[in-house]
Amino acid sequence: MKIAVLLFEGLTALDAIGPYEVLARLPGAELAFVGKERGDVRTDNQILRLGVDRTLDEMPAADILVVPGGFGERRLERDEEVLSWLRKVDAGTRITASVCTGSLLLGAAGLLRGRRATTHWSRMSRLAEFGAVPVAERVVRDGKVATAAGVSAGIDLGLALALEIAGRQVAEAIQLSIEYDPAPPLDAGSPARAPEAVRAMVLQRIESRDRA
Amino acid sequence: MKIAVLLFEGLTALDAIGPYEVLARLPGAELAFVGKERGDVRTDNQILRLGVDRTLDEMPAADILVVPGGFGERRLERDEEVLSWLRKVDAGTRITASVCTGSLLLGAAGLLRGRRATTHWSRMSRLAEFGAVPVAERVVRDGKVATAAGVSAGIDLGLALALEIAGRQVAEAIQLSIEYDPAPPLDAGSPARAPEAVRAMVLQRIESRDRA
Repeated sequence: MKIAVLLFEGLTALDAIGPYEVLARLPGAELAFVGKERGDVRTDNQILRLGVDRTLDEMPAADILVVPGGFGERRLERDEEVLSWLRKVDAGTRITASVCTGSLLLGAAGLLRGRRATTHWSRMSRLAEFGAVPVAERVVRDGKVATAAGVSAGIDLGLALALEIAGRQVAEAIQLSIEYDPAPPLDAGSPARAPEAVRAMVLQRIESRDRA
Repeated sequence: MKIAVLLFEGLTALDAIGPYEVLARLPGAELAFVGKERGDVRTDNQILRLGVDRTLDEMPAADILVVPGGFGERRLERDEEVLSWLRKVDAGTRITASVCTGSLLLGAAGLLRGRRATTHWSRMSRLAEFGAVPVAERVVRDGKVATAAGVSAGIDLGLALALEIAGRQVAEAIQLSIEYDPAPPLDAGSPARAPEAVRAMVLQRIESRDRA
């Protein structure tokens, strides 16, 4: 089972690493990190380098496609090379998936028209630009398209896909392997429960960065 | 505030990326990925390359030290260059932290003697080899040493440290930024709740790999 995870300049690392850490453990998984050029990409904060081992041309098809988000996603919405690759790969996937603002890139490629989808809570209104129906859930499935909410939601996405593809026991074994028994010391991970001042602070920071 | 995250051949990516994704968002954070040589390391499954931008010599001190785990950790338990670097950096840290079997490396460096600590559930018995007191909790704090359970527990560790260092509002803003509102589709993330057959399967796989 071929799994392609797209990497690009300015991605958010955990968007990609969450689903990778789950899906790479599926029996028979051949997971590759794919990008415009072989080499490295830097994350949104310029701190981490992640290695791209295959070019888009070298990975023209996959059973599962995973598209992460991050501030660098915005630029790709007008990158015809990436958009046409997404359309080509999507045509043959079993599951096309995204994490965070990766769904906006799927949208820009025309893959979310009329579909229910999610993204980072702060960017939810942008989904309508691409004809998608915004849904504020952790993982949203519409046909073969699975979109996850912000950043850390990619772990839940990965497990949902593992359950579907390999069944309960394998998915449970993966969850236990990565000891995914979350215990956040605070309860501010959802915009519905975070204090209003915190929500405003995060929103302002994201919007100023997204416009830059 | 200088934060050093150790990278090495055969680490588990999420062990490092979880705390990174949280701690890099702290105001004033200068986070660097440190390793024996500049260049890349490959993860435990050989699939992902992560970039090392500073050598151990180039990062002789840090306010926060984060040591991830993974099958590659075992080899480092006899690597005097790494062990002496850990001791040197630890001498000046505000917080010395580990994720998963990263705690065994802290133990091998002599930094857990008499301390309460945790690690991946499957390796818990090894903590006693290093004079540590094993504790089956998500994040264990003893003095300035904070150890986290397996793989995904590094996100909870990161948030606990963010709360301590920068206060509630900043930590909440980070949690909301990464939309850390976990909703696993299964409840097998803890050895106490996973089915016995799943636990046995994972344990067998880990033990055969760890002996290899």
